[in-house]
This record gives sequence, C-alpha cells and structure tokens, in this order.
Amino acid sequence: MTQANTPSPPYYAAIFSSTHTGAHAGYAEDTQTILDLAKQQPGFLGIEAAGDDDLSIAVSYWDSDETIRAFKQLAEHLVIQNRGRETYYKSYKVRVARVERDYGFNV
Amino acid sequence: MTQANTPSPPYYAAIFSSTHTGAHAGYAEDTQTILDLAKQQPGFLGIEAAGDDDLSIAVSYWDSDETIRAFKQLAEHLVIQNRGRETYYKSYKVRVARVERDYGFNV
Repeated sequence: MTQANTPSPPYYAAIFSSTHTGAHAGYAEDTQTILDLAKQQPGFLGIEAAGDDDLSIAVSYWDSDETIRAFKQLAEHLVIQNRGRETYYKSYKVRVARVERDYGFNV
Repeated sequence: MTQANTPSPPYYAAIFSSTHTGAHAGYAEDTQTILDLAKQQPGFLGIEAAGDDDLSIAVSYWDSDETIRAFKQLAEHLVIQNRGRETYYKSYKVRVARVERDYGFNV
C-alpha cells in the first residue's frame, strides 16, 4: 500500500491497531472486502495500512466523524467485525481523531 | 511492538507514514534512538508501529500538540530527520490529530 493523498486539514482519521491470534481463516478476504467497502462510502478520503507479525495498523481518512460512525454500522462491516473478534483478532483498538495539520517530504 | 495503553481521550496523535528507498544504513539505529528519545519527553503517552516492504506507520501519542512540536525540534531529532531524508526515506507524511474517542476489543 502507498501513502494516502489526503486533502488539506481538517479531516478525520480512524486509527485501527490490532494484534492477531495467528488464525488466518478469512482474514485476507475480509480485509479486502472492508477496504473495497470503505472506498465506496461517501466521505472516504484514503487509507494507509502496514503490518508485521506483532502489530497491524490501518489508518483510514474521512471527511467527518459522522461518516466514520456510519461506516462502522454498515451491516456487512458488522458481520466482519464479529468474525474478526471470534477468529483472527487477539485485540484491537480504534481511535478516532481530528487531523489538524500535516506536513511531509516528497508527498 | 504491542498496542499502546493510552489514557481516556482527548489527547494527541502524530501519525507518521513513510516509504523507503531501500537503503538501510543507519535506519535501525536511528529508529531506536528516536524511540528512546520520545519516551523521555514530557507528555509522551505511547507509540504503536508496524511496517512491511511497502509502507511503515508509526503513531505516537502525546498529551498536547505543543509536546509534539517540541519533540520535532529537538536537536538530536533534527539530525536524524536530515539523515532520513538524505538516505532511507523515499517519502513521508506526518499528520497531527486530536484523538476524540476510542474503543476496543481485549485492550
């Protein structure tokens, strides 16, 4: 995955960090489904994700907290959240944050 | 790395995402130095980091935007920022965000 090309702040970020049980059943497919679903939502601005054996981090960017709340409650998303808790996630945390400023190098 | 045990919101996040040139000289040592330096700063609350071949993401948590700005300007940090731009970073972006709410599973 590459870096997200987000607009000028302010906008919102959903910072999702997770640890894994090691059970991979459904994980790759569900991750792709959620990504495709997110991209179809109004207010979606982009996503960045990286992972290694210890921790995965996915930061999705949105135009408002309301669109983040709406995405969480989509039926297809709820089904995958349940499967994640039952199968491949050992733990996760979501932090919803308002991006106030940004800067970069070669972006 | 494990998940950060942050306090109840509000607090601040510095979302640092980067792509790499493939030159590894100094990268591991500099990353460790920056991590050790961050942990010594007043207002530092925790950090989460993950990376793969395409993208690295490190999210550090702080009590205020002022402490994030102060950390950026530390002399030791400035030296490493320069080396990063000259050597191992192809690109990076920093987004400073105010965490407004959080929730999780087994955390």
